[in-house]
Amino acid sequence: QREQWMRNITRCQKDHLSTKLISDKLPVDFVFSFTCLVCDHLLSDPVQSPCGHLFCRGCIIKYNHVLGPHCPGCNLPCAADDLSPPAKAFLSALHSLPLLCPQGECGEQVRLDSFKAHCLDHELGRHQGSRQPAELDGYLLANKGG
Amino acid sequence: QREQWMRNITRCQKDHLSTKLISDKLPVDFVFSFTCLVCDHLLSDPVQSPCGHLFCRGCIIKYNHVLGPHCPGCNLPCAADDLSPPAKAFLSALHSLPLLCPQGECGEQVRLDSFKAHCLDHELGRHQGSRQPAELDGYLLANKGG
Ligand SMILES: [Zn+2]
Ligand SMILES: [Zn+2]
Ligand SMILES: [Zn+2]
Ligand SMILES: [Zn+2]
Ligand SMILES: [Zn+2]
Ligand SMILES: [Zn+2]
Ligand SMILES: [Zn+2]
Ligand SMILES: [Zn+2]
Repeated sequence: QREQWMRNITRCQKDHLSTKLISDKLPVDFVFSFTCLVCDHLLSDPVQSPCGHLFCRGCIIKYNHVLGPHCPGCNLPCAADDLSPPAKAFLSALHSLPLLCPQGECGEQVRLDSFKAHCLDHELGRHQGSRQPAELDGYLLANKGG
Repeated sequence: QREQWMRNITRCQKDHLSTKLISDKLPVDFVFSFTCLVCDHLLSDPVQSPCGHLFCRGCIIKYNHVLGPHCPGCNLPCAADDLSPPAKAFLSALHSLPLLCPQGECGEQVRLDSFKAHCLDHELGRHQGSRQPAELDGYLLANKGG
């Protein structure tokens, strides 16, 4: 699969969040607009190409290194120097995106910009219920500067 | 063209806003997620199908009437009874979408939920500069309850 092949390049499986955490009531095209075109995860530290496509900063750098300076979405030229931060209106929609907490008994909807803190609280036993699902271990570790 | 043919069904050209008003610095997939899949305008009174696609309420009703109860985006079943209001996180991103005021000398970025009032102010001579471009006449008329 293209997806698996690409993730062998990016190796981000443990650091990025799945788009399946996004509330499944949100419109599909809206959810897609927050998805990295390289790794298919929820965008992490997003950057924008001149053609208007989005990727995690780490993903597009690795992609360009292996496959050359073009956009994974539309194949137009796209080198590291062409990348810019997305507009504030986009970032504020991203940061307020509601995620479903995957902790078994929790079920809370948490904004993306509060999600790490919420998950760490589970790990430290500050919420009801036990530890995080193992999938989140890498994500939380990265947050603790580990 | 499909686009022209569809707009002969919806007849919304004068009532809806062009997606070209959206700041062209925003990511293309993000802009697309605010576009009606029937008329290609900026969504007006959006409703969501069970498959997660979005349309102006008026557009999907006219579309279903002429072409039958299926989704214009993916062809899955979609009747008037299946439509629901989009989630709040989506609506708040839509309402805060920055539009570029098309009034010649203005050039301000205005949130979608302030846009009608801003344009009416131009028409009433409350801002610098003269009247609105003629394209907005129908849109403003609808707002005044005309
Ligand atoms: Zn990733
Ligand atoms: Zn990525
Ligand atoms: Zn592109
Ligand atoms: Zn939780
Ligand atoms: Zn329209
Ligand atoms: Zn429409
Ligand atoms: Zn659909
Ligand atoms: Zn203006």
